[in-house]
This record gives sequence, structure tokens and C-alpha cells, in this order.
Amino acid sequence: MPERDLQYLAGLAAQLRVDSVRAAAAAGSGHPTSSMSAADLMAVLFACHLRYDFDRPDNPANDHLIFSKGHASPLLYSLYKAAGAITDEELLTFRKRDSRLEGHPTPRLPWVDVATGSLGQGLPVGVGVAMAARLERLPYRVWVLCGDSELAEGSIWEAAEHAGSEGLANLTVIVDVNRLGQRGPTRHGWDTGAYARRFGAFGWHTIEIDGHDPGQIDFAFTDASNTRRRPTVILAKTRKGEGVLEVENREGAHGKALKDPDKAVAELGGVRDVRVEVHAPDTGADTAAEPFRFDAGELEPPVWPVGEQVATRAAYGEALAALGAARGDVVALDGEVADSTKTETFAEAFPERFFEMYIAEQQLVAAAIGLQVRGWKPYAATFAAFLTRAHDFIRMAGVSGSSIRLVGSHAGVAIGEDGPSQMGLEDLAMLRTVHGSTVLYPCDANQTAALLAEMADLDGVSYLRTTRGATPVIYQPGERFPVGGSRVLRHSPGDRATIVAAGVTVHEALAAADDLREAGIPVGVIDLYSIKPVDTAALIEAATTTGNLITVEDHRIEGGLGDAVTDAVSELGPRVIKLAVTGLPGSATPQEQLADAGIDRHAIADAVKRLL
Amino acid sequence: MPERDLQYLAGLAAQLRVDSVRAAAAAGSGHPTSSMSAADLMAVLFACHLRYDFDRPDNPANDHLIFSKGHASPLLYSLYKAAGAITDEELLTFRKRDSRLEGHPTPRLPWVDVATGSLGQGLPVGVGVAMAARLERLPYRVWVLCGDSELAEGSIWEAAEHAGSEGLANLTVIVDVNRLGQRGPTRHGWDTGAYARRFGAFGWHTIEIDGHDPGQIDFAFTDASNTRRRPTVILAKTRKGEGVLEVENREGAHGKALKDPDKAVAELGGVRDVRVEVHAPDTGADTAAEPFRFDAGELEPPVWPVGEQVATRAAYGEALAALGAARGDVVALDGEVADSTKTETFAEAFPERFFEMYIAEQQLVAAAIGLQVRGWKPYAATFAAFLTRAHDFIRMAGVSGSSIRLVGSHAGVAIGEDGPSQMGLEDLAMLRTVHGSTVLYPCDANQTAALLAEMADLDGVSYLRTTRGATPVIYQPGERFPVGGSRVLRHSPGDRATIVAAGVTVHEALAAADDLREAGIPVGVIDLYSIKPVDTAALIEAATTTGNLITVEDHRIEGGLGDAVTDAVSELGPRVIKLAVTGLPGSATPQEQLADAGIDRHAIADAVKRLL
Repeated sequence: MPERDLQYLAGLAAQLRVDSVRAAAAAGSGHPTSSMSAADLMAVLFACHLRYDFDRPDNPANDHLIFSKGHASPLLYSLYKAAGAITDEELLTFRKRDSRLEGHPTPRLPWVDVATGSLGQGLPVGVGVAMAARLERLPYRVWVLCGDSELAEGSIWEAAEHAGSEGLANLTVIVDVNRLGQRGPTRHGWDTGAYARRFGAFGWHTIEIDGHDPGQIDFAFTDASNTRRRPTVILAKTRKGEGVLEVENREGAHGKALKDPDKAVAELGGVRDVRVEVHAPDTGADTAAEPFRFDAGELEPPVWPVGEQVATRAAYGEALAALGAARGDVVALDGEVADSTKTETFAEAFPERFFEMYIAEQQLVAAAIGLQVRGWKPYAATFAAFLTRAHDFIRMAGVSGSSIRLVGSHAGVAIGEDGPSQMGLEDLAMLRTVHGSTVLYPCDANQTAALLAEMADLDGVSYLRTTRGATPVIYQPGERFPVGGSRVLRHSPGDRATIVAAGVTVHEALAAADDLREAGIPVGVIDLYSIKPVDTAALIEAATTTGNLITVEDHRIEGGLGDAVTDAVSELGPRVIKLAVTGLPGSATPQEQLADAGIDRHAIADAVKRLL
Repeated sequence: MPERDLQYLAGLAAQLRVDSVRAAAAAGSGHPTSSMSAADLMAVLFACHLRYDFDRPDNPANDHLIFSKGHASPLLYSLYKAAGAITDEELLTFRKRDSRLEGHPTPRLPWVDVATGSLGQGLPVGVGVAMAARLERLPYRVWVLCGDSELAEGSIWEAAEHAGSEGLANLTVIVDVNRLGQRGPTRHGWDTGAYARRFGAFGWHTIEIDGHDPGQIDFAFTDASNTRRRPTVILAKTRKGEGVLEVENREGAHGKALKDPDKAVAELGGVRDVRVEVHAPDTGADTAAEPFRFDAGELEPPVWPVGEQVATRAAYGEALAALGAARGDVVALDGEVADSTKTETFAEAFPERFFEMYIAEQQLVAAAIGLQVRGWKPYAATFAAFLTRAHDFIRMAGVSGSSIRLVGSHAGVAIGEDGPSQMGLEDLAMLRTVHGSTVLYPCDANQTAALLAEMADLDGVSYLRTTRGATPVIYQPGERFPVGGSRVLRHSPGDRATIVAAGVTVHEALAAADDLREAGIPVGVIDLYSIKPVDTAALIEAATTTGNLITVEDHRIEGGLGDAVTDAVSELGPRVIKLAVTGLPGSATPQEQLADAGIDRHAIADAVKRLL
């Protein structure tokens, strides 16, 4: 590399360090030292390798850069300043109220794909973004900056396995091996070979370099770009806090502003105004090209006659295949249980749009997040119970505002003999807490198909809960079920109480209502298929007219349908009796399970009688 | 191996297959084919290598056997029958209501350490059990049977990293590489070398064998037992459904009873009555020896004067160190954030009882589960937000009835500038849904110390939520805070409403109550430090006397304190106003965050005024 270029890169890197120190000093907190170690790596990336049109963040030909080590946000924002995307004034709003330069990057910034800060997530999401390139037949590259500490996360190795096995050559991971974690030395310190052996075993091309040598860095990026059929990991040995003696390569200097920022800035050569011209992608005649989508046709949703016995999971599979035929942007992923979730119906119809993610639920959800970064509409399915494995990814998807669609099958004790390890009993609570989420729980096949189609255009994280066993179809084909709505299934002026149910318990509630009517006790029944947002008006109406609500759900008593109902009516204050799973189920038939959990028709009827 | 032994082992393995087929046939479901592939492996283990006293499952010298592939439960139960621990009659109760032979193994059986069935968990837990041997200076071995499909789980590689780096030579993993997952072929099929390269890179001794050849199996177990300073993985190439042509090595035969079990049994040589004598551990003169525990002394809890500003996370660290001095069975683990959670106070006092688990929250929780299998009292800490990473492990700990203590720091928006990725806003909801859990949330240092000590003798999963910033000490040292209790902090006969708070919002509630009193509106304040179990009597008393409850919490509105309160009083039906986090926080100071989320003193006072 010519001396002039080396001098320029050294000056740019020094400025990135200076600005990281300044931003953290202005905030009084942040992670300047974790930024300083990676400054040379990112200087070379921005100046020589990244292809990104800062004026058009939505240019489909743009590369993607994900800071998996999100705490190095001062470095990222300093890069934006050097690229002319933000001003120095804005840089110094870092971590202040209403600033879009948050402590960890979020998509409030148009150049950020996903929120990071929960370590070990940026790489798995980057894998999803890289996967999309194959569908789109576009040559963009995905660059992920990781810390060395986060390589301890299992999600990193789920990603390593998927990217390695799929040969995602457009993915380059840069690991800032600065040896020091938050509390002290990492497990492997500067032993970049330890990481190289691991990534190598997973099928990656590995490069070990001095992360402060621009020539080596440039060579590594070039090598990565030229590598075929394999992703590349660049293991860069660096010093945390590089350039400032007070903190350089020292323990105890993590995650805090420098004590004497002015001295540090002087030591780094003072404030500069170096600009970096990031090259826009060379799209030739294709600048206006839309990213590829599959052919689309008319939506012809599957229909089932009223009275037929159909599992909602089966309806999901068929409805998703119908949606795939109608929309060229729908893709599906599954956690190696597509024969159980019934994603296989879609997979057989559209093999090129189906992704087998094997038993790796974090990567399953992360891939969905990555695909939606590129505008796809991903549906990701596994057992409801096993979505808990990806809770942190789902939480962060909420922070990112990522639009992903999750489907959890085998909900509740109604699965029967398999026992508690396989029962989704916490999923409603988990999904309800996600920021901006939608939680849907259909009770029959036609409703499932309708809700699945609704999900396609929802923003944020949406969730569909399906049932293993067959339940009777009670709705006509073609009926609409708006998100946030509910259905009154039984109602009479003399209703003594209203039973609120969803999914499998709707059928138990209807049976209980029939039993109660025979016993001279008329009760209403509401199908609360939309758990979040919930139909507050309908619930308040029911509470006002009948005074008593009985909620019944195949879920733990905490955080699910019952809590959604009490939340909706809490300011009114009706009596609410909650029936839900409170004990520890074992193995038994589905009907025995419902009885043992106290959520079957008899338990509901008993609760009504007890109440009155 | 002598021909006579080979014949015996072949007969034993055949019986295990026959009994697996029979048990699944009696149940009409289950996983016979996944059992048949591993029958030879387990026959040799039970006959020649396992050291286990079936008459004394609590013998501390016993080996541990964990079926990470819990769906192979028919094989496990068939082994128990061959070992004389259960009868043939009980074997045929498999998956029936009230049978302790559930679809997936649980500790209802005295020989099962932990519930499995959520794949990828048995190995990480086994790592924890193996870690305990060093503390206890006992020579027991840990044998874990894994499926090949579950090697896709990131948690497996967290475990591989920890066990490899720690050199846990007493841990042997047997992988039943039967090539077929649930839906179809695994990623690597019979390429045992692919797995060997991965485990090898993580520092393991690897052995590749034919999993149906007793001689090779026996040699591998001997090799594993003789290997020093490294854990061993035995990668055994097997055929799923081995021995029955209808299902052997065929897709589509996962997780179902065989179509013609009688024919299959005949093909396998018919029903046998082979017994296996599992050797009890040779404990010499030590049969009565208790497992080692550290020296214990008097509990001298730290004390703080009322009015001092102390972060509850700091109080946790000091209180845990005091508890460690008082109890020889307390151990602590942390996810590489001990300087933030303040576990470091314990780590510095008792380095031999502190486990740095690095940034691997699944292994963090799994290690705690493994340690409690051996009778230790583990406290595992990380940021509350990052405990979501281990949700599925916590869920399964609830199924197992494992007694682990979790501590989540940096709860809520009150952390301030770091932003939403670091905020624990879903932890109360997550922990409340866990079967048999206890959820505690102290508001001051003395209360933290008291609750931490209470946790030591709690059964099941218990959780302590701590706060980043300093809050004033309001309770005297030495006050007691029983689990399931609450504290009335403000109360007068004329109270117009009662504010229910916990943790950081207790202080906001007290300030609001003071403001309201000045405005002529007396209100009560309850410190609901025990979120689960909740003090229903006190809440009903407050609801009855003041009619109106206002809940305020630094947590999402779904599933937390507010829902715990509405659940407790729902059958009574008071008005409840819930104040909680509903938007997406950014960066801001702690006080700005509380204001923006609408949970500070002003928001509380406004809510009371609006209500009245």
C-alpha cells in the first residue's frame, strides 16, 4: 500500500479514536476503549472496501455493515461523521435524551439494519442478510464486526455452522480480538489460532492479522472478497484503548469515558477533520432495479367446511403455501420440525423459498430478522416451547422494529403424551412482552388461514400459536378476523357470565356453555383470537353486561390470555375468574391433560357454578 | 472382548430394542427408532462402564447418566428394567396418565437428574455436574447421550467450549450419529469427521466408532475413562431403527410407534429377560462419606444505615459474600459481567467457589442446574435482559424442579443511557411463568440482603431482580422479609387509593405519596417485594379499604407486577390502574427514563388525581 494511503488511513483511524473519546466524554459514559481497538479495521473498510451509498440507504445494491459488538457505537457514529452522514454537533449528542445516537445502535438511524448490544446477535442476523443475496441474485457483501468476548455465545456457533455449511462467501466477519472483556481477560486472550481452529472446523476461511496494520487489514479484506464458496473470518489482534497510554491494553477500562479526555485527544494527535469517501456500489445500468421477488398470483386461501376436524397447524401449512403462491416476498424457515409444524406444505410447494435451519432456534429467528432487513416477509416456525430458546433475539427484534412472523406449534397441555418439555405454556407471556408485538391464537382452520394472511402486512414481531390436535371448524371460509378483534360466539340478554377463550379452549368453552344452558345458566362465549392487541371494547362490553368474566387458556396462568383480559378491564374492575395451567403436567391423553389442568368443559362449567 | 461377552451384549441390546418397541406400542406413540440406534452403546455402558448404585440413587460416588436426547426415553426405561429398577409391567405404563415413565424423562424418577426433551440441554447440564466433581474431589464420571441433530444447538458449543477449556476429563459425551433427524437427514449425515473436527477444535478428545460394534464401543469408553485433562466425545455411527427392516435407516420413521410391533419384536429375536448388573461405585471405606462442602461459619449479613444511597446490585454482592462465609454449599456463577452484577464481591472472597462462565448465558444457567444436582446452592447472575437468552433452560429447570437462584441486574429503564438492549424489561414476566418459581424484587440494600439469604433454602427456580443505580436505604438492618409477604409503607384510614410498587418505583411511589398528601390526597403505599408468590391478603385488604389500586413498575406492562396484582385481586374486582413501560426507550438519564416511561413520582401522582 502506498505511503500516502497509509498516512491517510492512520489519520482517519486517529480521528475515529479521537471522536470516540470525545463522544463518550460528552456523554459521560459509553465504550471508547472498545471503539479504539477496532478503529484501524473500520478505517480501512470504509476507505477501501465498503460499497455503500449513504445518500440512498435503501439502495438494494448496498453492502451491509453490522456492529455485532454494538457497544462500540462511538466508533460507528465517528465513522458516520467521517463519511459525512452526521455532523460533529450530532456526534456530541451521543447517549443524550432524544438523540438518535443511542448507547447501542438502533435502526432509528437509517444506516443501521438492526439494533445490537445483546452480544452474539449481529453475526446470526448477518447470516440472514447474506442468505437473502442468493434469493435476490445480488452481489452485495455483509460485513460483521464482532468482539472476541461474544464468541463465547452459542448463537455465534449456530451462525458459524449455518454460514459455513451454506458456503455464504458474501459474508465477512471481522473479530476485534482485543483480549479484554468487560470484567477481565477473555478465555483465549490473543490466541487468534484458537478462534481460527474453531471457525475453520465449521468450514470457514480464516485469516489472522495484526488489526492495527492497515496493509494487513487491506489484504485480508481483499482476500475475503476474493474467497469463493466459504465465508471468511478475519481474526485481528488488537489492543483495547489503542493509542492512549492511560487505558491501552489495561483491565478496568471497559465501558467508561476516559478520565482525562482532553489529554487523550492530544495524545491521539488532536481533533482532525478527515473525510472518508465511501464508494457507492457500482450498479451499472441497474441503479433503479428492484430487488428480485418471486412471481406472485392471486390469493386462493384454502377452505374447510364447517364441522370438519382439522389441526390449526395443518391449516397454517396450507395457508402459508397459498400465501406463497400469492406473494413473491413470502419466505419460510423452520427449526427441523417442518413435518410437525407443517411448514413442510410450503417447503414442498416452494423449495427455493424454504430455509431448513435445523435445531438452532436462535439462528432460525435471526435469519428471519436478516431476511426482513432485505424486504422479505419471513415466517419462522418451530414448537412454541422452543421459541423460548430465541427469546433474546425476539426481544431485540422488538427493539429493532423488525417485521418477522413467528409460528409456534404444539401449544399447551393439549399436545398430550409428549409431556411438559414439549408443551408451549409460556409463549403467550413471552410474546406479549415484546415491544410492538402482535399475538394471535386461532381456534379453527379457516380462522388460521385468515390470520396468517393478516400477518403478512403487520409491522413488528407477530406471532401465531397453533394446536397439535384436530379441532372442529366453526367459522365459514372467507370470514374476516381483524387483528385486535374478537368474536362473540354465544350471547343472550340473560347471560350470567362470559367465558373468554382462545384456541383449543374455545371448543371447551362452547361445550361448557351448552352444558350450562341445559342446566338453566345462560353464559356468553368470546373467542379472543387476538391476544395482543386485545379487543378491549368487547371485553368491557361483556364485563359491563354480565359482570363476571371467566378466562380459560391452555397456558400458564401468568402473562397469557387471562392477564391480557384483566389488563383490558382492570380500570373497570369486574370480577374475573382465571382458569389456566398452574401445576406440572406429565404424560396423558390430550383430553386427560385438559381435565387435569382444570381447563376442560367440566372445569369451566364448575367455575361458572361456583361463581354464581 | 470374549465371544461370550459379545453374545451377552448382543442379547442385552436386542432386549433394549424389543422393550423400546413394546413400550412405544403400548403407548401408541414415542420414539422407538431413536432408541434402537443407541441400544448397543447403552448396553455396553450399563454392563461394563457405568458405576451406579440403583439401590442408592443419592450415593455421592455414583456416576451420572444424562439422556440429552430425551426422546429416547423408551431406551432409558428399558435399561432401568434390565437393571431391575422397574418391572416390565411398569415399563408398559409408558406415557400413560400418572405413570412416572413420561414421554421424556423427568426427575420424578429417582435416577434422573434433570428433565430433558428440549434438545441441546443435557450436555450443558452435564458440564455443570462434571464441574462439581472438582469441588467435591470425587472421581465420579458424567456420561451424556446426545443425538446428532441436537449438535446444531448453540448451547452444545457453549458447553463444548467450557468443558474443553476447563479440561473436564470426567465428562464423556456419546453422540448417537444415526444420520436422521425428525424431518429428514441431518446436515452432516454420517460424516462423524465433521463433528470430530468441531469438538477437536474446542479441545476435546474425539473417537469415531461403529456404534453397533460392542468391541469398539467398549474400547471407546475405556479410552474416554483413561483420557486426562480433556473431555471425550465418542462419535458413534449408527442406524436409526437398527434391527427392524421396516424402519431401519429410513426417513419418516421418527417419533412414532412401529406399525407392526409384534413382527418387529419377532424380527429382533422375541421378548427376552436379560438382566444387567450395573456395578455400584467402589467407594472403599467411604460409602458413608458426605460430599465435600466448604467450611461454614456464622451469617453476618452486611448492614447499611437508613438513608444511605446504595445500589441493590452492590448489596447483592456483599450479601452473597456474607452468605458464602456462613454456608459451605453456596457457589456463584456469572456471565462475564461480575463487575456490573457485583458478583465480583463474592468472587474475590471465594475464588474457588466462583465460576466465570463468560458470555454464554445458556451454559451459565445450565451449570447452575448441574451444580444443584450435586446438592450445591448456586447463584447465577447476569444482566436481567440477558437472562432471556437462557429462557428455555430456566423453563426446563422449572420442569425438573431444579433449585437454582438467578440474579438479574440492570433492571428496567432506570439503567439510563445504555438504552433498550441492556434493559431488563421482560424478566419478571419470564420468571413468573416458570413452574414453581419465586420472584423477588427488593428496593433497598438491607432488604436485598434479607431476600438473598431467604433464597438459599427455597426449592425450585428463584429470582432476585436488582437495580443499577443507588437508591436510599429505607429499612432497618435485620428486618425480615418473608417470601410471599409485602410491606405497607404508607397507610392512613383516609387513603383514597393504594400505590403498589417494587424496587426502584417504591421510591417514586413514596415521593408521589408525599406530594399527594401535601395536595390533600392521602394514599397508601405497598412495597410488593415478593412478586411471586404474591401477598394476596395484603392486596385484597388494600383493595377493599381504598377501592383503587395503582401499580407502578419498571417493566413492560405485560406479565409483571401489575399483572401479578390484577391476578391476585381479579375475583374481587377493584379498579386497578397500571403504570408500566409501554413505549420503546432510547438513551437518557435514569430520571429522564422514569419520566418518559410514565413511572416516576409525577406520573404516579397524576394517575392518582386522574383516578379520583
